Amino acid sequence: MSTARLETFSDGVFAIAATLLILNVDTQVSDDVSGLGHRLLHIWPSYVAYAVSFVTIGIIWVNHHTVLNQLARADRAFLFQNVLFLMCVAFLPFVTRLVAEHIRDDGARAATLVYGIDMTATAIMFQVIWFYASVGRRLLREDADPRTISGITRSYLPGPWIYLTATLIAIASPKASAIMYAAIALFYVAESSLFGRREGIT
Amino acid sequence: MSTARLETFSDGVFAIAATLLILNVDTQVSDDVSGLGHRLLHIWPSYVAYAVSFVTIGIIWVNHHTVLNQLARADRAFLFQNVLFLMCVAFLPFVTRLVAEHIRDDGARAATLVYGIDMTATAIMFQVIWFYASVGRRLLREDADPRTISGITRSYLPGPWIYLTATLIAIASPKASAIMYAAIALFYVAESSLFGRREGIT
Amino acid sequence: MSTARLETFSDGVFAIAATLLILNVDTQVSDDVSGLGHRLLHIWPSYVAYAVSFVTIGIIWVNHHTVLNQLARADRAFLFQNVLFLMCVAFLPFVTRLVAEHIRDDGARAATLVYGIDMTATAIMFQVIWFYASVGRRLLREDADPRTISGITRSYLPGPWIYLTATLIAIASPKASAIMYAAIALFYVAESSLFGRREGIT
Amino acid sequence: MSTARLETFSDGVFAIAATLLILNVDTQVSDDVSGLGHRLLHIWPSYVAYAVSFVTIGIIWVNHHTVLNQLARADRAFLFQNVLFLMCVAFLPFVTRLVAEHIRDDGARAATLVYGIDMTATAIMFQVIWFYASVGRRLLREDADPRTISGITRSYLPGPWIYLTATLIAIASPKASAIMYAAIALFYVAESSLFGRREGIT
Repeated sequence: MSTARLETFSDGVFAIAATLLILNVDTQVSDDVSGLGHRLLHIWPSYVAYAVSFVTIGIIWVNHHTVLNQLARADRAFLFQNVLFLMCVAFLPFVTRLVAEHIRDDGARAATLVYGIDMTATAIMFQVIWFYASVGRRLLREDADPRTISGITRSYLPGPWIYLTATLIAIASPKASAIMYAAIALFYVAESSLFGRREGIT
Repeated sequence: MSTARLETFSDGVFAIAATLLILNVDTQVSDDVSGLGHRLLHIWPSYVAYAVSFVTIGIIWVNHHTVLNQLARADRAFLFQNVLFLMCVAFLPFVTRLVAEHIRDDGARAATLVYGIDMTATAIMFQVIWFYASVGRRLLREDADPRTISGITRSYLPGPWIYLTATLIAIASPKASAIMYAAIALFYVAESSLFGRREGIT
Repeated sequence: MSTARLETFSDGVFAIAATLLILNVDTQVSDDVSGLGHRLLHIWPSYVAYAVSFVTIGIIWVNHHTVLNQLARADRAFLFQNVLFLMCVAFLPFVTRLVAEHIRDDGARAATLVYGIDMTATAIMFQVIWFYASVGRRLLREDADPRTISGITRSYLPGPWIYLTATLIAIASPKASAIMYAAIALFYVAESSLFGRREGIT
Repeated sequence: MSTARLETFSDGVFAIAATLLILNVDTQVSDDVSGLGHRLLHIWPSYVAYAVSFVTIGIIWVNHHTVLNQLARADRAFLFQNVLFLMCVAFLPFVTRLVAEHIRDDGARAATLVYGIDMTATAIMFQVIWFYASVGRRLLREDADPRTISGITRSYLPGPWIYLTATLIAIASPKASAIMYAAIALFYVAESSLFGRREGIT
């Protein structure tokens, strides 16, 4: 079974999850009747949350791309692991809105915790699909370079731990946790875009 | 006529229907002003319903994939049967929300009944497109293996009956019915992912 | 310029517009607190409207498919005409909800009129893109069969007039007009699926 | 890395952002109980805003198409610049609704300012991805014609300045600014569709 239709379905979910994020910004002004300018400034966490989650989905999409590029085929188990992985990704618009709306009130802890749990689950599922595909070269292309494969493995290993750390930080300080979610996305994009350090493993 | 564009359109509907499921979780906290943590725990049926329906759509997508892989071409009748099939799939976010919101109140019976009717209709439409394509090998590939074909036929036959049973159970016990919907999805994924029993027919 | 990316974009809009239709059914029960079963029966026009518009989008998708199959390439003018055509298609979820919500109250005339105007505009834009592509064989494939081309032209000519008629009927009788919208979709699918009369021109 | 999956993801975001625009028209009548016809006429700015933003997304899609056609490959930096570009595009449904709802009340200035900022950012990001790809022919196809390349560069240069001008006009006159956004889209489509002047650079 080729990976073509898996790409279509996955890219669909990535694109929709990213684009739905704007609906959450939308609801923040829906009951606004006056002082629109003031209101639009007041909801700045919604813009930050939108940007962080959009870029995070972009990062996940690029990495998913990298993984599928190394595969020759997919089997049913791999397809279902992917469905579970996409289920975590599609949950992101919900937890993004929670953080955006509640980061400045009493719900901040619950919101950043839930965001972190979803991101940790996403990172774990990403490991699962990569290990399922790469251990014993189960689904890899014949010509997949062993150094590229071990480079991918090394670069994805810290993911779940980084997000788990940020999630635990949410218990002590929701704001520190939110800043960390943003910093992870920013760091990753900066590293890839400006310094091209990861270029070799793509 | 090739099946390429049918795949694009179908995968689009599958991806959107799955991703829209999160909007229903969203509405459950929209009027929340305090006690976010408590509220997020309270709406656990929404998470279960999200997961069950997301995985169910994933199963349908994989099976649709399996069917289209056996086809050499599509005709207009097949395209329209597919539209009717996708119409049932796209209905799923609505009935999922009904179950998630009402499983603990007086609406449980109506909600689980409607969910079951939609799933039964989806399973019937899936049979229709498969039989239309495979009877007399109408749209099959030249090289489609007869044993694979009869294997697919056998594995899809119980679908409508299983969902019809769960639907009828909803009249007596909505909760038993909801558990059965979850169990069907879980069983199917476990069977495919862990034991790979269906691998042969993909 | 090939038509591949035009197909991806168009199929995306078709799939999303069709799947968004369910959100309109959704809003009909959002303020429901008791008597869910009764409420779900009461909103039957929403289900009919959902089915009619979903099938109508399916028909448009199949026809768009038929047209693009005859083309060798696209130019910028054709791409923008397609954007205007898709703009009419993406408007359909809005007018569908208007008809579903208001067919039994004083808004029926306005709702069915607006639905008809959108469908008439869609049918006209469909003619525009077909005539732009086919007149003088501007964008057609070298091997496009003249009889197929004139068959497509003949079969699409009545579209705008049929929808214009249904729109004008809305002024006298909104209900007759709504029935006519449903009948057009039903007739078209039945003709294609059961009798295969249009198979020759696909 | 080929550009195929970048196209799927981008076209997904374009298609969804365009189709979500209709939800904003939808919310304008959601609390309507009587006088539907009158109400539907009253919200005419929503239709204009829908059309202008839908066509604007269509223009961006065609131009993105033109750029990707010149590329032989993509690297990670280019992928992430594209994510940031798509982030601006997916923001458009939100700012479109602001303009549609507030162009006739006190929020007009804030709404048209925010719309202009988003469009200016989109135009700047479009320049960024084009310059990143074309400077030193970094990602261009071997056979990309130098005159076509410089033609594209010339035709995209004014974009950010035109939108920046319209944004600054919003401070003095929100309505003039809104008219200018519509005129930009109209002019661009008319120029391409009717006179085909830009055909050469596609």
